[in-house]
Amino acid sequence: MSRTTKKPQRIFLDYASATPVDPRVEKAMRPYFSRKFANPSAIYGEGVESKKILEDSRKIVADILRALPDEIVFTGSGTESANLAIIGIFLKARQLGIKRPHIVTTAFEHPAVLEATKYCESLGAKVTIVYPNGDGIISADEIGKALSKNTVLVSAMYANNEIGTIQPIREIAKRIRQFEKRNKSTKKQIHLHVDASQAVNYLPLNVLELHCDFLTLDGAKIYGPKGVGILFVERGVLITPLILGGGQEKGRRSGTENIPAIVGIAQALSITEKMRERESKRIARLQREIFQGIKKIAKNSRVNGSLDLRLPNNVNVCFPKVDSEFLVLKLDANGVAVSSSSSCKTISENSRSYVLEAIGGKDCAESSLRITLGRWTTEMEVKKFLKILKKCIS
Amino acid sequence: MSRTTKKPQRIFLDYASATPVDPRVEKAMRPYFSRKFANPSAIYGEGVESKKILEDSRKIVADILRALPDEIVFTGSGTESANLAIIGIFLKARQLGIKRPHIVTTAFEHPAVLEATKYCESLGAKVTIVYPNGDGIISADEIGKALSKNTVLVSAMYANNEIGTIQPIREIAKRIRQFEKRNKSTKKQIHLHVDASQAVNYLPLNVLELHCDFLTLDGAKIYGPKGVGILFVERGVLITPLILGGGQEKGRRSGTENIPAIVGIAQALSITEKMRERESKRIARLQREIFQGIKKIAKNSRVNGSLDLRLPNNVNVCFPKVDSEFLVLKLDANGVAVSSSSSCKTISENSRSYVLEAIGGKDCAESSLRITLGRWTTEMEVKKFLKILKKCIS
Repeated sequence: MSRTTKKPQRIFLDYASATPVDPRVEKAMRPYFSRKFANPSAIYGEGVESKKILEDSRKIVADILRALPDEIVFTGSGTESANLAIIGIFLKARQLGIKRPHIVTTAFEHPAVLEATKYCESLGAKVTIVYPNGDGIISADEIGKALSKNTVLVSAMYANNEIGTIQPIREIAKRIRQFEKRNKSTKKQIHLHVDASQAVNYLPLNVLELHCDFLTLDGAKIYGPKGVGILFVERGVLITPLILGGGQEKGRRSGTENIPAIVGIAQALSITEKMRERESKRIARLQREIFQGIKKIAKNSRVNGSLDLRLPNNVNVCFPKVDSEFLVLKLDANGVAVSSSSSCKTISENSRSYVLEAIGGKDCAESSLRITLGRWTTEMEVKKFLKILKKCIS
Repeated sequence: MSRTTKKPQRIFLDYASATPVDPRVEKAMRPYFSRKFANPSAIYGEGVESKKILEDSRKIVADILRALPDEIVFTGSGTESANLAIIGIFLKARQLGIKRPHIVTTAFEHPAVLEATKYCESLGAKVTIVYPNGDGIISADEIGKALSKNTVLVSAMYANNEIGTIQPIREIAKRIRQFEKRNKSTKKQIHLHVDASQAVNYLPLNVLELHCDFLTLDGAKIYGPKGVGILFVERGVLITPLILGGGQEKGRRSGTENIPAIVGIAQALSITEKMRERESKRIARLQREIFQGIKKIAKNSRVNGSLDLRLPNNVNVCFPKVDSEFLVLKLDANGVAVSSSSSCKTISENSRSYVLEAIGGKDCAESSLRITLGRWTTEMEVKKFLKILKKCIS
């Protein structure tokens, strides 16, 4: 085939919206589709083997998170994990007699958190929304001030999915402990849920250090399979399940366990953990190159969110007066896949970014690009992308 | 390798608890793990392609069920589908002002249905449980008699997962229509949910003929992937979603769509549909052979449930005074995988069959074997199984 007829290689720079399954993960999953497919609840040999694989996977995940195996619940997605933590603790609090449980969250959480919170509100929860500052950072003090004697949950993301800003989770956890100490609570009532879906590829994850009670992870964001999520639930914390039936996952999530996906997410998390430090450094260099390149291309461009407290794979830039959706399509026509805001809302919604609005960048909410790098992003791609962007902007 | 060292081939006869992924399904899924992995909500080329694949899959499923594409909701499992129908319609009824919505179901539904119903009861629903007769068949008249002016849902399975008995769904639907006619209901209030997870491999499935409003299918029972289910929701029927977030599936089930699994379940359903008639005949012959063989081996054995109104792949037999769990383990040690009851409850539960108790077979609830045949069951396996059973029983 002559070179001219070869289909040009596309440049994918939207890893925050979807990651391809790592070939090592795919390989690890393969035996469990048609060969080792038995139901882990069956008592014969094949079932026992499935059960062992399930528990081995749980142990792998638990060890990485510094959790106990029975603190790990496998769910059907990151969205389901976040829902289970929020709705689950709200319903449980109601069951335990708290009439109007209070939930504190932030204005720029993922829709999985915001919509679950709204749902609790519709059922009678009191909800306090804390806004990030102009740099896209939540103040732990603000969270601390929002706490009340009926607070049962604080839900905060470890890193934002649109602008990549890293939130002070340890500080937030500290404020919660201080509040409970001041109020001489005899037992823990305020639980901390951390959505770490985006952070896990680049930040150390350790539930002991984060001092959280819930932690959400999503297979589809860590080069693992779609359709599987993890929810860490601290031992002793009771939640009302969302999905009921055979009582799998110690009653916290019913339905036959999805062994291939569970093997996959455990393997994906292992790989991510092993690659994290080196990959973070490699990606950070490319990120700098893009930030510098964009500044040269569009002098009036502005970075959305803090540059320092930021995931190394996230570039989110405002191009004043540029219609970002149009720019995304123009880049697409030139072989580049990036997004204007997050892809977490369906297309039918408008394309304004509620995240950028939350950090006060109203003018930027329809004029920004989110460029997210990933495991297969190369320096050559970055250089090529900058050339194409220059062409599309001017 | 000499013949004597070759690992003996196991005989798997528990297809009702789990089916291996058909190699054709696995092949169809493969491109979507690491190559075509984009988020269907993204507006660039790859996203648009993912969206198209999603909608093509939805169309395939809809056509087979004689439904409209927007009536098909992809979920994370059969359990989730059943939960969404039951809890979703209950919560919606409450929202619409029905104070004590009434649900009618049967005593031997899958735990996904029974537990969801119990949950609604705990929230204030009135629940009526209809018992099957000694043959394991529900009387449509009994269902008809149970209906009341507050009934919002009847949930009945198309075929039972333990004893394979086929339920008179069309008759039940008729009784519902008659009731509504008698009560001059101006708009439909009583919805029919059919759990067709086990039936779909062998019975024609057509939502127009079944006259149902909800229908549940599970990828893991039709030689498709685990971690994906289908819920048919008749157009115009509103439900409160269980999982909230980005508003995917027209707001009925949030979370990034699991494209590989969705492609897989659509392909699995297509294959099942194409093979159904021939496969039903082939399997029915093997079923007869097993029933006859068992009668010869154990003269005092009794078939649980109707012989005529029965899925062709289900053999459920009571061996009076035999401890079925012990027999399952003995068979396992001899290379055969069958189950005592269903594997839908986790091991921690006791092994008594609530299904057999429901049909009045109290003595049989701990003395029965469920043998379920499937796509890879051969005549040779059946003969070998009978020999092994004879050895284990005597």
